[in-house]
Amino acid sequence: MGLIVQKFGGSSVANAERIKNVAQIVTDTYAQGNMVVVVVSAQGDTTDDLIEKAKEINPNASPREMDVLLSTGEQISISLLSMAIEALGFPVKSLTGWQAGFLTKSTHGSARINKINKERIENELGKKNIVVVAGFQGINRYDDITTLGRGGSDTSAVALAAALHADCCQIYTDVDGVYTADPRLVKNARKLDEVSYDEMLELASLGAQVLHNRSVEMAKKYSVKLHVLSSLNRGVPGTEIKEVVDMEKMLIKGVARDNDVARISLIGVPDRPGVAFKLFSLLAANKINVDIILQSVGRNNTKDISFTTSRSHMKQTVELLETQLGSLNAERVEYGDNISKISIVGAGMQTHFGVASKMFEALSDAGINIQMISTSEIKISVLIDINDSERALNVIHDAFIV
Amino acid sequence: MGLIVQKFGGSSVANAERIKNVAQIVTDTYAQGNMVVVVVSAQGDTTDDLIEKAKEINPNASPREMDVLLSTGEQISISLLSMAIEALGFPVKSLTGWQAGFLTKSTHGSARINKINKERIENELGKKNIVVVAGFQGINRYDDITTLGRGGSDTSAVALAAALHADCCQIYTDVDGVYTADPRLVKNARKLDEVSYDEMLELASLGAQVLHNRSVEMAKKYSVKLHVLSSLNRGVPGTEIKEVVDMEKMLIKGVARDNDVARISLIGVPDRPGVAFKLFSLLAANKINVDIILQSVGRNNTKDISFTTSRSHMKQTVELLETQLGSLNAERVEYGDNISKISIVGAGMQTHFGVASKMFEALSDAGINIQMISTSEIKISVLIDINDSERALNVIHDAFIV
Repeated sequence: MGLIVQKFGGSSVANAERIKNVAQIVTDTYAQGNMVVVVVSAQGDTTDDLIEKAKEINPNASPREMDVLLSTGEQISISLLSMAIEALGFPVKSLTGWQAGFLTKSTHGSARINKINKERIENELGKKNIVVVAGFQGINRYDDITTLGRGGSDTSAVALAAALHADCCQIYTDVDGVYTADPRLVKNARKLDEVSYDEMLELASLGAQVLHNRSVEMAKKYSVKLHVLSSLNRGVPGTEIKEVVDMEKMLIKGVARDNDVARISLIGVPDRPGVAFKLFSLLAANKINVDIILQSVGRNNTKDISFTTSRSHMKQTVELLETQLGSLNAERVEYGDNISKISIVGAGMQTHFGVASKMFEALSDAGINIQMISTSEIKISVLIDINDSERALNVIHDAFIV
Repeated sequence: MGLIVQKFGGSSVANAERIKNVAQIVTDTYAQGNMVVVVVSAQGDTTDDLIEKAKEINPNASPREMDVLLSTGEQISISLLSMAIEALGFPVKSLTGWQAGFLTKSTHGSARINKINKERIENELGKKNIVVVAGFQGINRYDDITTLGRGGSDTSAVALAAALHADCCQIYTDVDGVYTADPRLVKNARKLDEVSYDEMLELASLGAQVLHNRSVEMAKKYSVKLHVLSSLNRGVPGTEIKEVVDMEKMLIKGVARDNDVARISLIGVPDRPGVAFKLFSLLAANKINVDIILQSVGRNNTKDISFTTSRSHMKQTVELLETQLGSLNAERVEYGDNISKISIVGAGMQTHFGVASKMFEALSDAGINIQMISTSEIKISVLIDINDSERALNVIHDAFIV
């Protein structure tokens, strides 16, 4: 008995049959005596189809008009899901982003939520209605439609759960929960019963693709209990994501791979203060996100600085640095994107001895060369050749997780 | 130079190429120094496709959720047209029904417009923007999305033109204008340069299908000058619809056919007062619309009452009357729907002698039997066998219009 926010992604509402399945999950929850607020994404490929339509007309359409277009995808989903719930005989109201009170910043295409005006939703809940809300969208202070960008519907759901002080935010996906590694790549991958926000953040940013980081960050900030569940296999208990989890149960929570990595090295820069500052403020000014940074130990008064960025930024970054070689006093730029980042994640791993060495040993035994290493409190990442990545995932997984 | 409202129907925005064509018409009008507000319908078959999706999930979906669903069709159109206008380098803003200030009554599916809050549109026009508005939709006092029902986008355009005191409301369709008869049926059909509101109302209700009656009624009420134009043949001048037209130019404005007619006769009712009242209040109580009514001259103290209704109502009406034969003191019910209503329309025809007889003569010469006759100030209608209808259209057209 409580207030539950349920979020269903695009594949969960991809066709009439799946929508009816979602309606069953929602009404079962309601019939158990809960108040239910449902957040849905656009059906399957709707968003991509709409983007295709736009491109045919104007490849450089304004973000404002793209948002007007794309927000129709979720509006279709909320009405269809509400109709399916009506068919089961339950009271329901669908609400678009503006009707549900989602007020965002002005930026189109990736707006942040400023505030949720809860009056309408609370009013409908008070009338015993199930409320179905369009994810991914809101309006800005000009009353223009905005969208929240990637992972938007997850963020909508968590923001709603926080605003309504919901007892739980259930994220329904087409997987059973959060795994120790991608089950398509690692045959021994295991589902986790629970994971902490921080571990989930590392897993998500490393390509686990179950939940978007923005939504996990928000859940952590407002202590929203997340529960990742399968909309297709209803018997399976899923994974709970919360603040504190039993540390003793398993040290390493997962092994993740990220192939969207490019490595860029600035070779032969002077070994004196201020060089790194100059380089990274130049990258920031050009809106280039940097992930891992490594600086070699100076030798002959020069050093090398290497960093990783996303593949889509590689060309632009290399061109930028080559025009600035003079001002950076560097010899040359080296780069490559045939690499993969493999990471192990687990809260408190730095207080346990031997985690890093065990990971390196597993790679060494498999004859896999490590190009760069980066560590944080709950993560160790290595860059390796992309051709070794699947094998690396498996040997590391088997070394830590039984 | 002025403020022009332009309305484009579903076939005018059916694909990317046609949307670009519409953008050209709109921006040409703007480039001539006009303020332009554009109203668009959903693309081609979008509305039917959405209805199909809904039926698959719930054949008895609530009108509220149907409106949430269907209103996405126009929202897609406004964004795509705005993108096409952006591509031509002109400033534009799209507005959904609620953003454009359309406030309607609460009834979903066929809401009437209560009021248009003009602030947002006037604000955008003041910033020199072309404004593209979603037709067919608004919101009611609960902030729920409503749709205006059949002919809705025409009505949106005329209501906007009235509210904004526009100089003209241009209705773009896939025909060149209003014709003296359907050019697909009558080879000598001629395009009218101008027609009065009343004549257009009769032509529209008789199946001319260029403009919905609701929009013509509203245009008449608020003296909005309508201009029917082709979005495909831009050179053609189209048809103007306004209060007063030059009566001398042509007496008969058009010949129209309506095949959605069923004739029902109540045979052998007592020839005394109150019978017709009883019959038609019964029909009204059952929400059955009646068009032509004829009562035979009494004979042997009984008479026959015949009337027409739409085909979809025939079965229900006959069943109703058969259960009420006793209370109506009638002998029996006769009915049939293999009939067609052919009408000639022209303001002031009743002050000209010989119009009716000329029509009947044309039919007689062609050997076509007249089943019922009905006349009004600007219209004469006859019911004939449906198999004669195309021939009847042609002989009447040729008798009046050269």
